[in-house]
Amino acid sequence: MGGGQRERIIIVGAGLTGALLACLLGEAGYDVVVYERRADPRKEGIVGGRSINLAISVRAIHALKLAGLDRKVLEDAIAMRGRMIHSPTGQLSFQPYSKNPNDAINSVSRGALNVTMLDAAQQYPNVTHHFDQRCVDVDIETPAVQLLNAQTNQTTWVQGDVVIGADGAFSAVRERMHLLDRFDYNQTYLAHGYKELCIPPTSDGEFAMDPNALHIWPRGGYMMIALPNKDRTFTCTLFWPFEGPHSFEAVRQEADVMPFFKAHFPDAVPLMPMLVEDFLSNPTSSLVTVRCGPWCYQDKVALIGDAAHAIVPFYGQGINAGFEDCVSLMECLKVCRGDWSKALATYFDRRKVHTDAIADLAISNFLEMRDHAASKLFRWKKKGERVVHRLLPQWYLPLYNMVSFSRIPYAQAVQKAKRQDRIVTAMLLMVLFILLVSLVWWIA
Amino acid sequence: MGGGQRERIIIVGAGLTGALLACLLGEAGYDVVVYERRADPRKEGIVGGRSINLAISVRAIHALKLAGLDRKVLEDAIAMRGRMIHSPTGQLSFQPYSKNPNDAINSVSRGALNVTMLDAAQQYPNVTHHFDQRCVDVDIETPAVQLLNAQTNQTTWVQGDVVIGADGAFSAVRERMHLLDRFDYNQTYLAHGYKELCIPPTSDGEFAMDPNALHIWPRGGYMMIALPNKDRTFTCTLFWPFEGPHSFEAVRQEADVMPFFKAHFPDAVPLMPMLVEDFLSNPTSSLVTVRCGPWCYQDKVALIGDAAHAIVPFYGQGINAGFEDCVSLMECLKVCRGDWSKALATYFDRRKVHTDAIADLAISNFLEMRDHAASKLFRWKKKGERVVHRLLPQWYLPLYNMVSFSRIPYAQAVQKAKRQDRIVTAMLLMVLFILLVSLVWWIA
Repeated sequence: MGGGQRERIIIVGAGLTGALLACLLGEAGYDVVVYERRADPRKEGIVGGRSINLAISVRAIHALKLAGLDRKVLEDAIAMRGRMIHSPTGQLSFQPYSKNPNDAINSVSRGALNVTMLDAAQQYPNVTHHFDQRCVDVDIETPAVQLLNAQTNQTTWVQGDVVIGADGAFSAVRERMHLLDRFDYNQTYLAHGYKELCIPPTSDGEFAMDPNALHIWPRGGYMMIALPNKDRTFTCTLFWPFEGPHSFEAVRQEADVMPFFKAHFPDAVPLMPMLVEDFLSNPTSSLVTVRCGPWCYQDKVALIGDAAHAIVPFYGQGINAGFEDCVSLMECLKVCRGDWSKALATYFDRRKVHTDAIADLAISNFLEMRDHAASKLFRWKKKGERVVHRLLPQWYLPLYNMVSFSRIPYAQAVQKAKRQDRIVTAMLLMVLFILLVSLVWWIA
Repeated sequence: MGGGQRERIIIVGAGLTGALLACLLGEAGYDVVVYERRADPRKEGIVGGRSINLAISVRAIHALKLAGLDRKVLEDAIAMRGRMIHSPTGQLSFQPYSKNPNDAINSVSRGALNVTMLDAAQQYPNVTHHFDQRCVDVDIETPAVQLLNAQTNQTTWVQGDVVIGADGAFSAVRERMHLLDRFDYNQTYLAHGYKELCIPPTSDGEFAMDPNALHIWPRGGYMMIALPNKDRTFTCTLFWPFEGPHSFEAVRQEADVMPFFKAHFPDAVPLMPMLVEDFLSNPTSSLVTVRCGPWCYQDKVALIGDAAHAIVPFYGQGINAGFEDCVSLMECLKVCRGDWSKALATYFDRRKVHTDAIADLAISNFLEMRDHAASKLFRWKKKGERVVHRLLPQWYLPLYNMVSFSRIPYAQAVQKAKRQDRIVTAMLLMVLFILLVSLVWWIA
């Protein structure tokens, strides 16, 4: 395909990444058709119970800006400026994310954000949406998608110039790419699952805890977190092993739930009137990391967002990474002047190393949040990082800040953090050495 | 299911692992039904062109012995006692595998071995085989398999008590397990592919090279190997990158084939009269490593052999590992007294770490064969290993020997090799230190 004519782009999935990509491709003048297996969330209401709140930060905000949506989205968000650690005895301590009080991650509702973005995408006359259309097969060579209409139960094949799978961690488009020769694929589950719970507003309609923080109950081996919502509730998420002596498997009876929470999250229990009911009725979900490659096939098929690289939620970067994919793909289309074959290959080459890096970071942040966040040593280290950052703001940026408050590509951020850490360690050793020599000299 | 009654075991795949498992389960008194997608090789003749010869060694021989097949199979095999290295100028050097001249790996034809094993399995009245039956779906909960008859094009569902997927690297049974929550899965392709070529007998009907060696043309970055066959041919396999300046992609024209071989494998060219035709007509195949887990679901479904852990062929251990799976599964059934649920879980627990270890070893042996086998340092190291092995035969066993000439579980062999290497290195350093001190003392 050349650069001139208007290609017909099929996007599978009208979730957050699919909807943003539809906006950006719509803006660029492409004909875009989006197929989504679920019903239109603007008609059916938002389905909760299985989605951790989203934390959007600089990367997602930059992408939203390109679609003219950043202000609208931030108006609906709640800024979280640090971690509020809840000790086993219920004591609180606040760890700011940054020396800069304007640096915050922003809690948004996945459902509300999706509605905002679908509305925006539908402003483009060259973008159309079809809901209740589940992609059940993909013909990669044509390319075409086979759709099952949830209302009529009929399937139809629809052909396009490019098919983009934005259909999430269990992508149907990826499942077909999986069958291609030399497609690398890796899915790895954590031994932990998660369950959503809720902290409603207080009796006088206020937030039950500080809304401008991400609340963490780190317990070593497991944890609970809570993020604020605009309706003054908090969505809590318990991350816990599936099996073992302390696990979802071990606590399944009504009588076991309350004793467990009273023993480990005593300060949360009074805030959770529906705790036992929620615990027993809400599903226990698994946490998967998916890596694969290549994400593209000729000028015909590509994967984006969770379909290309599902990550665990512990760095709050899933949606940020997915939105960055959209920005990268649009840049590649521009650089390659609409040559989709080159653009898709370039997009994969550029992004893969960075999404691999954030996948690793997300897993290690789980260990940090559940095991270390409560420790004194960890808090000193974080304080030390903020001190060095304050002294040498141009040179030293803590890793968390590079990931959450900058657009430095993920893999570069990891490299820079390693370099910084080596230098700071060397400097500390030198200072210690000088102190020691001075001490010896002084004694002598 | 209890231990007493005769369960009906469905095995998907009558390849080598499936056929051996059918023998062992048949011997143990189970009702076994085997479904194979290909035609009966005893009727249709053996299809070549895509299978590297097999090298069977102690692990496979032990498993065959349990089925009473070891002698018969070894009669049809050719012992390879070492590597014959072909230099770029055509010079030969022989590296024995072991200080013990009886230690050999045995070249067998996959097709002939399969026929031997199918004949053996059919001796059991409680084992039946169905060919031309492709498994197209699996109902894991029942369990049952859906089979497509290649002759009638009809599908039927067949129910069993246990379904065992012995259906190879692209297992249909595993594909269904893939959809289970919390199934870890990893498939990784090498950047190299392979192509089979042939060295026929000489004009007087003899082997064109020494038949009692595995021939290697290591060229750094790529290589060719050749294994002897009973009909006095050699099956050559060229391992080469798919893409790049020296690759299958770069050499696709008739005019390019001969110059490449003359430049890099000059001594092989006169032995390969069909070289250009074979090169252009034989397929280029990919090399995949598959890891997954768990390999079992309750007392209903299990994976075995390549379906559970496809590995690259460079350690010659694929079939040895698959046969060891069969032995392990039978041991687990015995230990768990026919409780399939416990037996399958135990089988997975016991085997997983070892098949992961051989998967890693197979990849690193590729680097060793293609890059290092030609180097002087490597040959000295191998000689050093043989010397230490000769001096301390009870204590020191080179890794290659533990893998190929012992039944020490793979992961334990890797651990033992690391320990040995550390001790030998420490001893060498000590000897050097003593020599140095003596030298200083002598000079002083």
